[in-house]
Amino acid sequence: MNKKELIQIIKQKKSFLCVGLDTDITKIPRHLLDSPDPVFEFNKQIIDATINLTVAYKPNLAFYESMGINGLLSLERTINYLEKFRNEVFVIADAKRGDIGNTSEQYAKAFLSHEGFDFDAITVAPYMGEDSVKPFLTIENKWVIVLALTSNKGAFDFQFLQTENNRKLYEDVLIKTKTWGTDENMMYVVGATQAQMLENIRKIVPNHFLLVPGVGAQGGSLQEVCHYGMNNDGGLLINASRSILYASKENDFAEKARLEAQNMQKEMEMLMK
Amino acid sequence: MNKKELIQIIKQKKSFLCVGLDTDITKIPRHLLDSPDPVFEFNKQIIDATINLTVAYKPNLAFYESMGINGLLSLERTINYLEKFRNEVFVIADAKRGDIGNTSEQYAKAFLSHEGFDFDAITVAPYMGEDSVKPFLTIENKWVIVLALTSNKGAFDFQFLQTENNRKLYEDVLIKTKTWGTDENMMYVVGATQAQMLENIRKIVPNHFLLVPGVGAQGGSLQEVCHYGMNNDGGLLINASRSILYASKENDFAEKARLEAQNMQKEMEMLMK
Repeated sequence: MNKKELIQIIKQKKSFLCVGLDTDITKIPRHLLDSPDPVFEFNKQIIDATINLTVAYKPNLAFYESMGINGLLSLERTINYLEKFRNEVFVIADAKRGDIGNTSEQYAKAFLSHEGFDFDAITVAPYMGEDSVKPFLTIENKWVIVLALTSNKGAFDFQFLQTENNRKLYEDVLIKTKTWGTDENMMYVVGATQAQMLENIRKIVPNHFLLVPGVGAQGGSLQEVCHYGMNNDGGLLINASRSILYASKENDFAEKARLEAQNMQKEMEMLMK
Repeated sequence: MNKKELIQIIKQKKSFLCVGLDTDITKIPRHLLDSPDPVFEFNKQIIDATINLTVAYKPNLAFYESMGINGLLSLERTINYLEKFRNEVFVIADAKRGDIGNTSEQYAKAFLSHEGFDFDAITVAPYMGEDSVKPFLTIENKWVIVLALTSNKGAFDFQFLQTENNRKLYEDVLIKTKTWGTDENMMYVVGATQAQMLENIRKIVPNHFLLVPGVGAQGGSLQEVCHYGMNNDGGLLINASRSILYASKENDFAEKARLEAQNMQKEMEMLMK
């Protein structure tokens, strides 16, 4: 999916919600455990309940890999199911990969091609530098989402270090990585818990989309994120995972997830005006 | 495997060689393509040919993930096969993972437990800080190998940035992360292409094992690495991947791999004296 198409979907759905499919088999409703693939069944019902309110889905690979081959089969079924919504939703592999050049090429094949899982985008860690990121940028209409400023406590360990360039490390990451691609094939992860930093980040990357985790279970504020981070295109994908997936643990989980997503979509619709 | 056991194996085998199982189906001998699982068949023959010369194997996940579910089945068979050498070889998931706490917990389950792939160690990227690394440190006799200074060109993009602490970023990474664990559950990745930096690194982490990629195809020197990096325990695992795996593309590939590994082992034996 290209940038123009993504912006169009956001306008049509009046939403920039991304649902994080961090499906944890120990947290899904008990009655699903009888189905042949409980994780896929859960994802399918969440997708069906939220597809009109959501512009992106973001499975985090860790939750699938932790269940071994069966987990990856659940992911494969989920991605195949999302195929039928291909033109109306953006699908992100939250994988936080990155390795030496010849290895990142393999990851690109794994996550951005028909040979592996055919996602629209993958999250990538910047520590290993240019040759670890560039192989993901060579595929048309596919995106790299670079970790800039993350939503967790550990973000303060290194990302805010002051560097020789008289900047924070995350600013160096933004400034350097943005020269490796364009705002048509790169986005950045910026945690909602760092909303006050978005004003500064927008000075460095005014046109890039930002993927913003941390609203919901992690405590970030949607209004603040929009106030500081929105640009003319919208330019935001706001992720919520646990607050939507586990809105209820009962039979009504999908309906409750839909209501939670709808609340966020309504708030987004107001903030888009 | 604990540190004492690892040191014992190194002494017994007179080797600190790690073979990187970065198996690329496009590079393995053609005759293997007729077997039911060519990648596993290749790995099995490489393992059989090198087990007496090698103290560690390190499959890089990218090469398996790029082949989808089938690739992960090949990896599963490889790990199961290595089970029978459990007490004589250390097995590393070169996965370069790292995410917010609850997600890194899932990765720990995926790579350091019977529920997923039961490796001895996993490589982890430091950018997301403490809560992204700590979940891997809670499992007895399992190890985290943190990226400090990598072997690729992109290492120069961020890892050498001078920080407010009047140090390079990779030094800050070493100094901070070493407080999160001990030299009995943490190691560091330091590229052989940065051998001259090892003297300095040894001042910061005198007792930690270092996993050193970049000897062989990437051009690093074994002698230099040992000169600057060896400590009283040895303290090094030197990885070679392509130079061993693809020593020959013909029927004699396993024998040629063995000879290549043997050359390295002999050189290591001399350097251990």
